[in-house]
Amino acid sequence: MKKLLSLVAGMVLSATIANAGVHEDVHWGYSGKSAPEYWGELSPKYEMCKIGKNQSPVDIRTQDAYDVDLEQLIFSYYAKTTHVSKAHGIKVAVDPGNFIVVDGNKFKLKQFHFHSPSETMVNGRSFPLEAHFVHVSDDGQIAVIAVFFEYGKSNPLLEKIFSKAPAVENLDSSLVFKPKEIMKLYPANKEYYRYNGSLTTPPCTEGVRWIVMKKPLTVSKKQIKRFKELVPYSNNRPVQPINARVILK
Amino acid sequence: MKKLLSLVAGMVLSATIANAGVHEDVHWGYSGKSAPEYWGELSPKYEMCKIGKNQSPVDIRTQDAYDVDLEQLIFSYYAKTTHVSKAHGIKVAVDPGNFIVVDGNKFKLKQFHFHSPSETMVNGRSFPLEAHFVHVSDDGQIAVIAVFFEYGKSNPLLEKIFSKAPAVENLDSSLVFKPKEIMKLYPANKEYYRYNGSLTTPPCTEGVRWIVMKKPLTVSKKQIKRFKELVPYSNNRPVQPINARVILK
Repeated sequence: MKKLLSLVAGMVLSATIANAGVHEDVHWGYSGKSAPEYWGELSPKYEMCKIGKNQSPVDIRTQDAYDVDLEQLIFSYYAKTTHVSKAHGIKVAVDPGNFIVVDGNKFKLKQFHFHSPSETMVNGRSFPLEAHFVHVSDDGQIAVIAVFFEYGKSNPLLEKIFSKAPAVENLDSSLVFKPKEIMKLYPANKEYYRYNGSLTTPPCTEGVRWIVMKKPLTVSKKQIKRFKELVPYSNNRPVQPINARVILK
Repeated sequence: MKKLLSLVAGMVLSATIANAGVHEDVHWGYSGKSAPEYWGELSPKYEMCKIGKNQSPVDIRTQDAYDVDLEQLIFSYYAKTTHVSKAHGIKVAVDPGNFIVVDGNKFKLKQFHFHSPSETMVNGRSFPLEAHFVHVSDDGQIAVIAVFFEYGKSNPLLEKIFSKAPAVENLDSSLVFKPKEIMKLYPANKEYYRYNGSLTTPPCTEGVRWIVMKKPLTVSKKQIKRFKELVPYSNNRPVQPINARVILK
């Protein structure tokens, strides 16, 4: 069944590519010959997935992390309109108007999406769900904020998003939030880990500032079941070697 | 004159490649069409020089560096026999028997070499000379220690090395030190900066642990003059963007 669904998803994606014309990226996925271990072979554009020494996700070993005075993040999230789609998971594209400030630079929120189980691990521990908020600066630098969800109470905002997710990959539905409502997908306590990594999907671009929230939010078992109906495969890339990197806490 | 010398050096190197047979790497250098800005185009093997987001050298902005409790480095330097050669500068290959311990792992000293002017900068400042001690762990990870030299008293160990340097690139001369004598190329105070970078020469391999000694040693103007006779071109790669990286101090 899983294989069949994956095949259907692949066919839908191929159809999308054929129809779109401009969308020339090579198909990649999470199983079979397009699984994470083959990403680097699928296209020369995806080479960093294979040769990169600063790849994400990672397993954060908190004991090895350096204790520093990390700056407080500044959030300015006012955009309301978003577009929910399916693309290797559930993705919410956000209209302009949200940004964060990191290292004195403005990074604009482009989209957020979900991985189940979590991609990032903490001391070898995985979470049922992880949200990634992808921000890009005007000079093209990327900052991703990760938020973990552990089993517990149902999350109203996830409810809203999952209920709007289309059944197939080439459709999207718009969804309007209240101002700052997206902030509810962040924990109140915004302490974080920081490290230098990459996109966790092809082309696995490096030079990404990773900000991983320490405190998880909750997601109900029913909501994870719903997510699995929409995305009937694990969409987590395995953790990558730390190599010469350091993690700050 | 500089061009002619560079051309001669290129010819000698080509001859070496032709003679050696096994040495199939593409010629790269510091001027003309083989200068640092073209390294990434010279060979697919050198692609990281162009696409890497974690390249070395860097300009260490001490104000932006994170103040942490960096571990004390352990040096075990007992090998005495070395081989001095010219290869894009002055290089001293070291026989087995020297290692350092970083992150609980043993990294063996393979060689050290010199760049003039320095490659690493500190707050925009360059030094007349920089030594790089290249260490490799059994699983192939690289740790480089950088030592700066500023103008001052003559350095006896540099005297010994530069006097043994061959006039052409395809010869080398052996040189025997006293046990632990190589340690004299390190400052007594071994405080350092640490960051995650790359080799500063093709193939610009990333995942390199950079350990930059804070305190410089001295080199006389006469010694720099001697170095410039041996290496009549600047052999420093320009500083590279920090991107998502952090520097620890």
